[in-house]
Amino acid sequence: MGLFAGLSAFPLTPTDQAGRLKPDVLEKHLERIISANPASIGLLGSTGSYAYLSVAERKRTVRAAVQAVQGRIPLIVGVGALRTDEAAELAADAAAAGVQGLLLAPVSYQRLTDDEVYRHFATVAAAGGLPLCIYNNPGTTHFTFGHNLIARLSTLPNVEAVKMPLPADGDFAGELSALRSVTPDRFCVGYSGDWGAKNALLAGADGWFSVVAGLLPHAAANLTRAAMAGNAEEACRIDQAFDPLWRLFREFGSFRVMYAIAGHLDGDSIAPLMPVRPLDQKAGDRVRAALAELDASVGPLHRA
Amino acid sequence: MGLFAGLSAFPLTPTDQAGRLKPDVLEKHLERIISANPASIGLLGSTGSYAYLSVAERKRTVRAAVQAVQGRIPLIVGVGALRTDEAAELAADAAAAGVQGLLLAPVSYQRLTDDEVYRHFATVAAAGGLPLCIYNNPGTTHFTFGHNLIARLSTLPNVEAVKMPLPADGDFAGELSALRSVTPDRFCVGYSGDWGAKNALLAGADGWFSVVAGLLPHAAANLTRAAMAGNAEEACRIDQAFDPLWRLFREFGSFRVMYAIAGHLDGDSIAPLMPVRPLDQKAGDRVRAALAELDASVGPLHRA
Repeated sequence: MGLFAGLSAFPLTPTDQAGRLKPDVLEKHLERIISANPASIGLLGSTGSYAYLSVAERKRTVRAAVQAVQGRIPLIVGVGALRTDEAAELAADAAAAGVQGLLLAPVSYQRLTDDEVYRHFATVAAAGGLPLCIYNNPGTTHFTFGHNLIARLSTLPNVEAVKMPLPADGDFAGELSALRSVTPDRFCVGYSGDWGAKNALLAGADGWFSVVAGLLPHAAANLTRAAMAGNAEEACRIDQAFDPLWRLFREFGSFRVMYAIAGHLDGDSIAPLMPVRPLDQKAGDRVRAALAELDASVGPLHRA
Repeated sequence: MGLFAGLSAFPLTPTDQAGRLKPDVLEKHLERIISANPASIGLLGSTGSYAYLSVAERKRTVRAAVQAVQGRIPLIVGVGALRTDEAAELAADAAAAGVQGLLLAPVSYQRLTDDEVYRHFATVAAAGGLPLCIYNNPGTTHFTFGHNLIARLSTLPNVEAVKMPLPADGDFAGELSALRSVTPDRFCVGYSGDWGAKNALLAGADGWFSVVAGLLPHAAANLTRAAMAGNAEEACRIDQAFDPLWRLFREFGSFRVMYAIAGHLDGDSIAPLMPVRPLDQKAGDRVRAALAELDASVGPLHRA
């Protein structure tokens, strides 16, 4: 299995309201993730606020994570930026800091052409010199990958995986088969969109890029293990227990809900950077209820 | 007429490939704009690469423009940023530098709620303390304003105008009437999307936020004057002469085409920042042909 297969857990990047890392809180989140032994940690993904943090703070966050993780679990770092030179700089810096892989989102303002995205990936993948995963998430990056472009990118040195959004028609098997027919054998196809992970993995996806595993890694690891072993009954049972949380993810965006989960789990007062706002009290109470239901169904969420 | 009415000309921000301002080239563009006497200059809009430049370079660009313009035409500055604190800092800085107005785009990564955008605007408008125009451009900012939210924002101190995208159904009169019924009398409704400007102004829009006027201000000023005076025949004649250019704007994005126009007009080698790429030779030749047609129909483009 490649670096990008299995469960990848995406932590928040806890900061103050000026966007400065709180390294002690990040370390606590990382330790909880490591205790569940996922395949990798996806630092500075969308969940990790990469788009909102300064280059300096992103570099600091990478170093804090490398120091905390101490090589116990592979670290994958999001290096997306609006400018190619900035993304390349972040990729080279993350490699120098000692991470194991990179995640690159074609975050865009002007609508990008396929050729522009191809050159962007070629430049950044070369600058990093590490295994790189294509971050395909049109909802946040506003770029839509066709299978043709993924196929072209998969021939570039270092480009080893794609993180796919959930297919609109729910046909994971069809999409996996189509993507595998145009990419190399070793190329890894995983999914994000936590509420679709169970179906994706049961259909044979290589991995789950998981938001919720950033804070509830044990339950996510159990779901991953069951689904990747083809144990549909157990996978469905855990997925069902997550359902109230999935509903909140879809209603409010998983990013905002994750901050509420962090508050309930640890009592830390961390919040997303403005303009994004924390959930209000009423929504926060629903998050608490969803966590209680999950805890009752799949076991204590705090276990180490 | 308010600050945001009439023709607002949006210059490119000429930089090297590291994103450092070329002040002499900017000054040349500004002098050409000033010679056509538009109502305002829209510095650091989407055309001015605001989303791609560092905070330091944006501040430098504002100062270079203030110094070049010397108060001859009101300067409006785009202060959009993913973070509220950064946008507020840019707004306060632009005010301190001596500009006359601000333009604020709700540029987003996580999808924003109406309440988040409202607070963002309230904070930035207060930080700037200058007349502010709402920048409504879902194609680049990925936020869609409802009329309700525009109405709420129009009650905030300093919020005096909205820059609208072209209505999908082409019904300018209906949209103008709907917006005016929910905003204060003095509130200004203008449009961007150069190929729709003629129809917008003939339908009674207050202004045209013009990309093309950043490089071809005289032809744009003539079109604005004719359309705002209700001279449909002359407005249509000029708009028709622009048509080959409008087609290229729609096909390649006006941002890329503007760099090609700059090359043809001045021979300067400026290019968009990567990952955005300049047009290829073939498309560049079509831009040259479109300019020749415009020149033949509406008079020399270089006149001062």
